[in-house]
Amino acid sequence: MTETRPRVVIVGAGFGGLSVAAALRRVAADVVVIDRRNYHLFQPLLYQVATAALNPSDIAQPIRSVLRDQANATVLMGRVMGIDRAARTLSLATGDVVPFDWLVLATGARHAYFGKDDWEPIAPGLKKIDDATHIRQRVLTAFERAERADDEVTRQRLLTFVVVGAGPTGVELAGAIAELARDALARDFRRIDPRSARVILVDAAPRVLPVFVEELSLKAAAQLRALGVELKLGAPVAECDSTGVVVQGERIEAATVLWAAGVQASPAAKWLGVAGDRAGRVPVGPNLHLADDERIFAIGDTALALDAAGKPLPGIAPVAKQQGAWVGQRIAAALTGKPQPQPFRYRHIGNLATIGRNSAVADFGWLRLSGYLAWVLWGLAHVYFLIGFRNRLSVALSWVWAYTTRQRPARLITGGEG
Amino acid sequence: MTETRPRVVIVGAGFGGLSVAAALRRVAADVVVIDRRNYHLFQPLLYQVATAALNPSDIAQPIRSVLRDQANATVLMGRVMGIDRAARTLSLATGDVVPFDWLVLATGARHAYFGKDDWEPIAPGLKKIDDATHIRQRVLTAFERAERADDEVTRQRLLTFVVVGAGPTGVELAGAIAELARDALARDFRRIDPRSARVILVDAAPRVLPVFVEELSLKAAAQLRALGVELKLGAPVAECDSTGVVVQGERIEAATVLWAAGVQASPAAKWLGVAGDRAGRVPVGPNLHLADDERIFAIGDTALALDAAGKPLPGIAPVAKQQGAWVGQRIAAALTGKPQPQPFRYRHIGNLATIGRNSAVADFGWLRLSGYLAWVLWGLAHVYFLIGFRNRLSVALSWVWAYTTRQRPARLITGGEG
Repeated sequence: MTETRPRVVIVGAGFGGLSVAAALRRVAADVVVIDRRNYHLFQPLLYQVATAALNPSDIAQPIRSVLRDQANATVLMGRVMGIDRAARTLSLATGDVVPFDWLVLATGARHAYFGKDDWEPIAPGLKKIDDATHIRQRVLTAFERAERADDEVTRQRLLTFVVVGAGPTGVELAGAIAELARDALARDFRRIDPRSARVILVDAAPRVLPVFVEELSLKAAAQLRALGVELKLGAPVAECDSTGVVVQGERIEAATVLWAAGVQASPAAKWLGVAGDRAGRVPVGPNLHLADDERIFAIGDTALALDAAGKPLPGIAPVAKQQGAWVGQRIAAALTGKPQPQPFRYRHIGNLATIGRNSAVADFGWLRLSGYLAWVLWGLAHVYFLIGFRNRLSVALSWVWAYTTRQRPARLITGGEG
Repeated sequence: MTETRPRVVIVGAGFGGLSVAAALRRVAADVVVIDRRNYHLFQPLLYQVATAALNPSDIAQPIRSVLRDQANATVLMGRVMGIDRAARTLSLATGDVVPFDWLVLATGARHAYFGKDDWEPIAPGLKKIDDATHIRQRVLTAFERAERADDEVTRQRLLTFVVVGAGPTGVELAGAIAELARDALARDFRRIDPRSARVILVDAAPRVLPVFVEELSLKAAAQLRALGVELKLGAPVAECDSTGVVVQGERIEAATVLWAAGVQASPAAKWLGVAGDRAGRVPVGPNLHLADDERIFAIGDTALALDAAGKPLPGIAPVAKQQGAWVGQRIAAALTGKPQPQPFRYRHIGNLATIGRNSAVADFGWLRLSGYLAWVLWGLAHVYFLIGFRNRLSVALSWVWAYTTRQRPARLITGGEG
């Protein structure tokens, strides 16, 4: 490294951050990628780790492996504590101070509990590998405890699973838990019948998968019901404690409540000293940088960026990837003296969500699918977008295995119990 | 279940416990398998999870799946707190009381710190899945911290790994860490060279793998040195703290110390109110039951059983399996009125231990092998003995992948860091 090379610091190695790094591959700059964790996570399949279908390493890859062949990239594992915009430095929890010339914040989001932060330990969300193994532990342990339970009330509570939030993650979780109970666990217990488990999907919104057109929402709802999932829509959660929830004035006794509702951006706005929106996102213009700093960008779930119609772009992987690639191009152009790219425009390909075995919905605008065909498409798309060929192979094999045997390979209760 | 069926309770679903259950498959008895965890673990490959080569679920299978088709078997997940021999009951941590007519204790062992229990958090051992993911986290995090370290002393300490105990687990761990540093991580860092990591294998005994004949111990030592592992033999650990160890009066600065020495049986002897040996094992006669109770058995690492020459049987999987099958037969014979089997005799097939890529030692008495051929044999034997066809396939594929690419798929730092 020479002293004079410009330094591009990317915080967050999700879909957005890695796209920035890739776009800077051939640029004479020092690219520093900082992440709290050592792995890039393929978040769309995280619910399959939570429901014992996949292993953590199937959907996660060390950031260092991803960037191994990019000679101008350095990876630092560390947690950002603050940004000094005047000094052009970041500080890490370890005390390290990292200087930057250009900065891209791609730090993602976590679940929001609408001000009820005490619900978080009761109703865990699903954002990282440890969340997934924790949820897997909770769900599997509930069946174990039900098998040991002496009274019917306790048994019923242990066999009731509430998923809050009927977006893609909530729908996938609810569908997968229903399948786990009906297929993989069906014959493994002697005193309980896992098929009698109740899976209840709750949302304040009037329909599931609100990003889809209503026709597909209704089809997804029908497919969920066919799997045995009960839907409670238009039903905000009023209370949540360790033995259940209250929705629509009705108390549901449930030992397991999982949270897939609401999104809160990471504290990037606070680090920068800018006013975030209600969800904590950093407002950026059409060039994805701060209003008063052309060299500090925010992308993906961290950013509040508007589309041509003035509507906020959704917090989904394609937005983060396209923004990341565009920001990388913009920095590369600036560093190499090439003309700047046109302001960012998001190209929407379509929406895909799966519900369970043989059932999914797909909406490409010109083509709308549901059921088996949508499900095959969903599977192909997700295997295709997995980073790392080995992961593709491993996930494909796990799915073929699970599909033919209806078993779940990763049914391990780890963590917590000694 | 009818009231009159005899009740056989097996504590521990390791190699021994599951062999007992299998032998009782066709007997008119209620077989209850109790384990603290919900999975059976293929412990011989646990070090490969600790060194990021395999996933937890590759070597673990839910006990319920294993016993699904055995209609007379019930699985309870719970921790045994005590045994009331007069009342013929076990008590669990949950407060449940489990009656038994026959009892088999197959609760295994954990590492012994020779009275220095405060070393345990500093130098973790490897007995369960959570240990393996914890060690994986420790090892991978050491490289991450070394990459960030500013001074050479800290960097050197972070890149020094001490493994205490040169039995099969210690040898495998040391070899695997050396390979991890030299192959999988070699090109992933910018500021450190992982190949400069020191891996030091320490034992109070004068040679590695003492269960093997000296000729093979020497070959194993040579193979370890070829991988870059430093050996300190005849060297008991005198001190152990969070920054290193003292052996032979020499202080070795090391951020990571792993423990693979000494074995302490589970508290079965205490539950029974019998005097255990120094390692806490329950003394049993040639019929593997207590001297004063023909219906309470101890097998595997839990038991102190003697061979024909009066020497204690070693704490290895084949002993536990053969004892389990034999105890199952004995109980089955008693319940069906058949003649009792001859007193237990252990049939030793051979010893196998692997060191690293293409290197292992095998001793069948009539045949002694080292190097590539022993390694192939080791791999075949371990895949063959894995329970569950899917696991066999998955492990075999992971190994072929790792062998050809020299990569480690499961390089995830999970747990601990937020």
